[in-house]
Amino acid sequence: MAVHHFQPTVYYTAIGTYPPVLEIQSGDTVVTTTVDSAGRDGQDQQVTPRGNPQTGPFLIQDAEAGDIVSIHFDHLSPNRKIGRTSTTIAPNVLDPHYVASQMPSGGGAEWEIDLGAWTAKLISPENQISNLHIPLEPMVGCFGVAPPREQSISTATSATHGGNMDYRGFAEGVTVYFPIFVPGALFYLGDGHAAQGDGEIVGTGIEISFDVQFTVQLIKGRDIGWPRAEDQNYIMTVGNARPLDQALQHATTEMVCWLVDLGLEKSAAHILLGQCIEYDVGNVFDPAYTMICKIKKRTLEQVGIWPSAVWP
Amino acid sequence: MAVHHFQPTVYYTAIGTYPPVLEIQSGDTVVTTTVDSAGRDGQDQQVTPRGNPQTGPFLIQDAEAGDIVSIHFDHLSPNRKIGRTSTTIAPNVLDPHYVASQMPSGGGAEWEIDLGAWTAKLISPENQISNLHIPLEPMVGCFGVAPPREQSISTATSATHGGNMDYRGFAEGVTVYFPIFVPGALFYLGDGHAAQGDGEIVGTGIEISFDVQFTVQLIKGRDIGWPRAEDQNYIMTVGNARPLDQALQHATTEMVCWLVDLGLEKSAAHILLGQCIEYDVGNVFDPAYTMICKIKKRTLEQVGIWPSAVWP
Amino acid sequence: MAVHHFQPTVYYTAIGTYPPVLEIQSGDTVVTTTVDSAGRDGQDQQVTPRGNPQTGPFLIQDAEAGDIVSIHFDHLSPNRKIGRTSTTIAPNVLDPHYVASQMPSGGGAEWEIDLGAWTAKLISPENQISNLHIPLEPMVGCFGVAPPREQSISTATSATHGGNMDYRGFAEGVTVYFPIFVPGALFYLGDGHAAQGDGEIVGTGIEISFDVQFTVQLIKGRDIGWPRAEDQNYIMTVGNARPLDQALQHATTEMVCWLVDLGLEKSAAHILLGQCIEYDVGNVFDPAYTMICKIKKRTLEQVGIWPSAVWP
Amino acid sequence: MAVHHFQPTVYYTAIGTYPPVLEIQSGDTVVTTTVDSAGRDGQDQQVTPRGNPQTGPFLIQDAEAGDIVSIHFDHLSPNRKIGRTSTTIAPNVLDPHYVASQMPSGGGAEWEIDLGAWTAKLISPENQISNLHIPLEPMVGCFGVAPPREQSISTATSATHGGNMDYRGFAEGVTVYFPIFVPGALFYLGDGHAAQGDGEIVGTGIEISFDVQFTVQLIKGRDIGWPRAEDQNYIMTVGNARPLDQALQHATTEMVCWLVDLGLEKSAAHILLGQCIEYDVGNVFDPAYTMICKIKKRTLEQVGIWPSAVWP
Repeated sequence: MAVHHFQPTVYYTAIGTYPPVLEIQSGDTVVTTTVDSAGRDGQDQQVTPRGNPQTGPFLIQDAEAGDIVSIHFDHLSPNRKIGRTSTTIAPNVLDPHYVASQMPSGGGAEWEIDLGAWTAKLISPENQISNLHIPLEPMVGCFGVAPPREQSISTATSATHGGNMDYRGFAEGVTVYFPIFVPGALFYLGDGHAAQGDGEIVGTGIEISFDVQFTVQLIKGRDIGWPRAEDQNYIMTVGNARPLDQALQHATTEMVCWLVDLGLEKSAAHILLGQCIEYDVGNVFDPAYTMICKIKKRTLEQVGIWPSAVWP
Repeated sequence: MAVHHFQPTVYYTAIGTYPPVLEIQSGDTVVTTTVDSAGRDGQDQQVTPRGNPQTGPFLIQDAEAGDIVSIHFDHLSPNRKIGRTSTTIAPNVLDPHYVASQMPSGGGAEWEIDLGAWTAKLISPENQISNLHIPLEPMVGCFGVAPPREQSISTATSATHGGNMDYRGFAEGVTVYFPIFVPGALFYLGDGHAAQGDGEIVGTGIEISFDVQFTVQLIKGRDIGWPRAEDQNYIMTVGNARPLDQALQHATTEMVCWLVDLGLEKSAAHILLGQCIEYDVGNVFDPAYTMICKIKKRTLEQVGIWPSAVWP
Repeated sequence: MAVHHFQPTVYYTAIGTYPPVLEIQSGDTVVTTTVDSAGRDGQDQQVTPRGNPQTGPFLIQDAEAGDIVSIHFDHLSPNRKIGRTSTTIAPNVLDPHYVASQMPSGGGAEWEIDLGAWTAKLISPENQISNLHIPLEPMVGCFGVAPPREQSISTATSATHGGNMDYRGFAEGVTVYFPIFVPGALFYLGDGHAAQGDGEIVGTGIEISFDVQFTVQLIKGRDIGWPRAEDQNYIMTVGNARPLDQALQHATTEMVCWLVDLGLEKSAAHILLGQCIEYDVGNVFDPAYTMICKIKKRTLEQVGIWPSAVWP
Repeated sequence: MAVHHFQPTVYYTAIGTYPPVLEIQSGDTVVTTTVDSAGRDGQDQQVTPRGNPQTGPFLIQDAEAGDIVSIHFDHLSPNRKIGRTSTTIAPNVLDPHYVASQMPSGGGAEWEIDLGAWTAKLISPENQISNLHIPLEPMVGCFGVAPPREQSISTATSATHGGNMDYRGFAEGVTVYFPIFVPGALFYLGDGHAAQGDGEIVGTGIEISFDVQFTVQLIKGRDIGWPRAEDQNYIMTVGNARPLDQALQHATTEMVCWLVDLGLEKSAAHILLGQCIEYDVGNVFDPAYTMICKIKKRTLEQVGIWPSAVWP
């Protein structure tokens, strides 16, 4: 149950089997930082090339392929005053005929982060919405573990190992479960957002460097197909693919499997999800899109499959 | 501002240019009923063939192609005790490999609707989730106006004219705006659900007959591309297409256009939506899927484009 | 076995249950004309509004829902000298980032049709490819029968009933089989192309009016799910949907079913198609895309399921 | 212009920055072998784990990111008597409702390869199509260069770097052009098929080990976005993505860019492709699907942009 204070000096823009920066044990907590998607740190200095650079990898001792690792985000906070966004909606998110004729010119926007007021305020460009200030909702855009088959996968996309999922629900207090594909799991994280609209449709949230604290747990001998998660109110599954229909298929199927893991007969799981399922949209900007499937914990309690421990 | 009490005797399973059952004026209110998706009425009697049979069409006087009609759902309530659902998740919503090997056998489920407790309780089949009772969230699955080009489109799908969108947000208190394609608009509605999971992934919500009251307003000389809506907290746009990516393109583009209609410069609309947009998933069962794009009214107020009247 | 000479005076831009223009019998031949997609006839006069106006509907006596009608294109020929195309690739067919920044401006092109040389020659605009002359490959872009559920479906799209499929293989000598959904089948055709690239990616082939001769056969009591076709070398199935993946699913499944109809065990049909299937791309411009699945007749002969009559 | 005879001893199931097995120069020819997708060699012995194991990587001296490498397949031939296929069409290629209820049970099939008669004959399982013998069409299923961003990408999928494209046109005599992302390019190849249906819809062609001879050319300082290719009759571009619509967008856009590279004005390229483009379907089994876009060389000659050298 050690607490590790780790200051990164190297960052990766692909998630793969790179040399671990720190070895930790199940139950340990890591206090660290992440740079923003452009490689800028808490002093707004460029310290590594752009492209969702990741802090890590963290090796979890005794982790093996076929196990699960859980990551609990104990604390997530922007650690500087300035955040940045793009300014035009991605052309893949708009009607092709609109894109052909009506796209505004691009550029960047800057936002002032006020941790006291807990808001982000648009400070440039000056335009009609200069009064806009929105509540902070810090979240981690890109995180995951080394993928299968000796792959190394760009932090500009996502798959079964996690990656750039850009889901607003991946915030402080959430626990995310990943399948493990390589010895030590090799966990990475980065791409913090002070806030973000669903889908990350301009290709950015409010990009900013973070102070992060997370705690890992190793769950031996349990396999999952896609990332799973839980927060106070929901259990959630994640599908990463294109089109969004396929991401939705992955997430829905993983949720059926989770309910069966929790003790429901398959036929009961289908009926239950039919009337109680909810979907959230994650990233719709990357090569792979992200769909989240979720169900309320209080619904599960009602049918007697909660609060069992998620994993025995 | 008349109030019409209308008892349907004919129902349609396509939305097109059929003879109007009632002529009304802008501002009028209609109190009527809908049968369930299987054609069963408030006495649970089969009165018309299955397939989302629609009450209507209601002709709005003076409505012409190029105008908009708004429908406010004043009151929506199940009007009988028994609702029904399917029991298996649709194969298009699950991983193909799961479908090939692990589908449970199908069938039907019955739910008891308790309007006092405001719950739906699963009463058959008996299984592990027999304790399940879920809060009622009455919503209209399928409604819309006669489509363009003299088309008549099945109530098993959706397009620019509305149709079978199965969005949980189409509940009491919402106002939905449709483009008008034919003289009189010709409004239809049906397919009430006592409750429904996102996506209508088993192909049904809790299907039930409804008492309905709605009020129409005609907005002359204003054109929109896709259905729009508002409730107490949000303005919303709707895209209907496959894949879900394309539905999302339609809904997002329509929202950009709406914000521009409301006075925002295009570049400001893009920045604003980038960090403040939200998506909800409607029907993912039909030939056309439904995606809803929405933004909070209080965000719009902050940037000074609300509470102007939506339509002058 | 009558031969009907029919001169159209009315045209439809949706395929539905409109009053028949001619009643014919199984075995009959019709000699008629079609206007081009813009409603211009053999004298290049606008005689009806644009939008793939259809000649028909032709009612086939004794045809009932659940039967099949076959259409053999005995003769297809442009009947004037001038054809027209659009000049820009549709934005839905190009990378969104290309569309956002590099689309050329639109316009129209004119082509001279030389029935002696059997070529189409670009005559305007003048540009680098003014020498281009391409072989004529006359084909019918849009044809089909009245759809199910009392629908009337725009000639700008396609579904199980046929419609705007824009497949280059729908040329003279092909026989196309449609499922019948309404009494009399109600067959329509139009949208002739002197030639066309795969996909109709500029939204047009070389649009031109046609002289057409076709012969119908009614096949009682046989049902199919999607249009099927055969020419000298292939049997073919058609899927119409978006995304193209789904069109491909429909066409592939229909081909498996056809092989089973022809006497193959399902497992043999799967093995055979695995190594012998071919795909062609039809329309990728419309709301619904078209994929063709085909297999060589000589392959079927080899395994002894051909030349049986296709339909007993 | 050396000829290298190379006997592989190590194989990779991901394409990335692994240590080169051989360094060659532009103009050099390599004579080597590939194992089948299951890791079985010319003696039908398992020599490496299954999963499209690749021979390579071959380092091309002086190759740098931003250059192009061309691979000409001088000779491709199965080098043993037995080939193997799967027997069931992949569930992602069939209608979900068919998959839910009608899938045959799986298994494997064996085919006898007769290099004299140039046929593959089904030898097991015994069933109705036991007479089936099909012409050999040897092709390479999976090949490409190390991808960008230090990625290593599974040979079960494809992207801008090539990979598992399973296109029947990648046969003897074709030249394929890849963008280079890493120093030395690092070329891999494997997954030979004696023959294959379009799409590789059972997840295999007739899988077999190969004798291969290929010749590489380095083209300095020329950049492309996606693989390009040419054979005797066509120039071709490749898009790898899901859905197939997006693969088609990539391939079409790359073809427009190629025509512009060859000297056509953009507007002329659009008109030309509109009436002359052709599409072929590659892999529709993997996470990424493959679409090929092509145009006849003789069409290009007609408009005066061929036979220039492809690359100056």
